[in-house]
Amino acid sequence: MTLREFQEQIRLMYGAKDARRGIEGTFMWFMEEVGELSASLRGQDRENLPLEFADVLAWLATLANIANVDLEDAIARKYGGGCPYCYRTPCNCDSAAKP
Amino acid sequence: MTLREFQEQIRLMYGAKDARRGIEGTFMWFMEEVGELSASLRGQDRENLPLEFADVLAWLATLANIANVDLEDAIARKYGGGCPYCYRTPCNCDSAAKP
Repeated sequence: MTLREFQEQIRLMYGAKDARRGIEGTFMWFMEEVGELSASLRGQDRENLPLEFADVLAWLATLANIANVDLEDAIARKYGGGCPYCYRTPCNCDSAAKP
Repeated sequence: MTLREFQEQIRLMYGAKDARRGIEGTFMWFMEEVGELSASLRGQDRENLPLEFADVLAWLATLANIANVDLEDAIARKYGGGCPYCYRTPCNCDSAAKP
């Protein structure tokens, strides 16, 4: 599934509710899922962990829908030419300077 | 670009550094990018906003790589059958009960 297809799937599923909730309310839902992902990463619940990643990604897609941002375009712009700082794959940035 | 291709691109670009940094350090980088996305959503910087979404997505992919989670599989499991609560597209959950 492409990123664009996924974002569109989320729009079809939740677009009407998303539009009513707005950026601020949606951001709080997104953060709740980020918290659940954090808890799941700390624990040993391998069964649930993928679903927490899916939820964070779904709420990120919802935020992008409300903000009229195309995630696939955004990724292509930022990461399409390799690391956005050294322009290499694999990244050749200094470990101290960059992550 | 598929989600799996994107996750693999991030692995090729940053996999070696990611493995050394570990989950905890990576989560802090991820959260820094979430904070920048929040600031960008509050402001009016439409030029930069897509790039902040891209960064959050890239760090989420990095976290998934370190945790050995396939994001595309995770999405299919959680959202492949419509809304995971009412199983409909569009979601037909009660507004008070679900987002």
